[in-house]
Amino acid sequence: MVRVHGMAQSGNCHKVRMVLEALGRPYAWNEIDTVGGATREAAFLAMNPNGKVPVLEIEPGVYLAESNAILCYLADGTSLLPGDTLSRARVLQWLFFEQYSHEPYIAVARYLRKFHPDPVAQRSLAESKMSGGYRALGVMESRLAAEPFFVGGRYSIADVALYAYTHVAGDGGFDLKRFPAVRAWLHRVQMQPGYAPMPA
Amino acid sequence: MVRVHGMAQSGNCHKVRMVLEALGRPYAWNEIDTVGGATREAAFLAMNPNGKVPVLEIEPGVYLAESNAILCYLADGTSLLPGDTLSRARVLQWLFFEQYSHEPYIAVARYLRKFHPDPVAQRSLAESKMSGGYRALGVMESRLAAEPFFVGGRYSIADVALYAYTHVAGDGGFDLKRFPAVRAWLHRVQMQPGYAPMPA
Repeated sequence: MVRVHGMAQSGNCHKVRMVLEALGRPYAWNEIDTVGGATREAAFLAMNPNGKVPVLEIEPGVYLAESNAILCYLADGTSLLPGDTLSRARVLQWLFFEQYSHEPYIAVARYLRKFHPDPVAQRSLAESKMSGGYRALGVMESRLAAEPFFVGGRYSIADVALYAYTHVAGDGGFDLKRFPAVRAWLHRVQMQPGYAPMPA
Repeated sequence: MVRVHGMAQSGNCHKVRMVLEALGRPYAWNEIDTVGGATREAAFLAMNPNGKVPVLEIEPGVYLAESNAILCYLADGTSLLPGDTLSRARVLQWLFFEQYSHEPYIAVARYLRKFHPDPVAQRSLAESKMSGGYRALGVMESRLAAEPFFVGGRYSIADVALYAYTHVAGDGGFDLKRFPAVRAWLHRVQMQPGYAPMPA
């Protein structure tokens, strides 16, 4: 049985839970106190020298880091990741979009406003993330106005990865009212078999 | 024949050239004036609504964006991307590391110092990228002190992706003197068959 070393309220970690639940795969969850500094301790760095959650422990001592790499590993050979080269590459295109053009704005604004010990001191930094976040939401909106899911008309790990922080974008101060196609897609994701809500 | 829409001096674009040259695949290159704003024009946004180079035109009208997704697409089924699920995931782990923990520091510092129209005004922003960039180089150093290449002991697109901005890190003000394993690896990459230097 795989073990997830993660923080339940982290979108990057929640992606992994969503895929495991959608696939009906048993797993153990080891909650990591990232805010308290656990990812900088030697025991954690031995699992991931880059000091970030989530880490998937595939078997004792065999570790895989980077949330979207973990998604590809778990979804390989399932309906959540298409088999042909071009469709897989299109899924990857959205996974890299998520990590470069979406997460550094939408997830970071949420972190600064909701999890940082001194959110007032971080307000101007959080504000600086808004235009990039809205830009990413605009790219998503134009895609989802034309297609029900990001790749090939069906639910895949591209949707899981983008859902994770989009559905809690309000925590970062983002208003989804002007993104109706994004809101309809959030609902479609929530209707998927095995959908797992983020723990409160 | 595929066509690359890119900027020759962009590391993200150069990765694509490196893989095409290593595989001996013919390609056309369409140089895009990103500094002059060409990626914000309608014709470019029709290829990539996210407005970033590189874009791979697989056949007329069929586009793929995100440098590392393009690398996976081109390398699929070749020696540059292992076939088994776990090894592929390990390559992806490094590709996501590159885009999240390396490029936003090392490539952005280089852009601000070398390509920005007013680098003096950007100095403090460029300085703010140094510690993250050195942190990424430290993660690379510890890996490369133990292994000749990032995954499975052989050259893969993980090496291509990380090479692209590391070999020009000096442009961003990074000093590689204290990273001997990284410097030895840069040399190993340069010795690969079909190695393509970045155009001057």
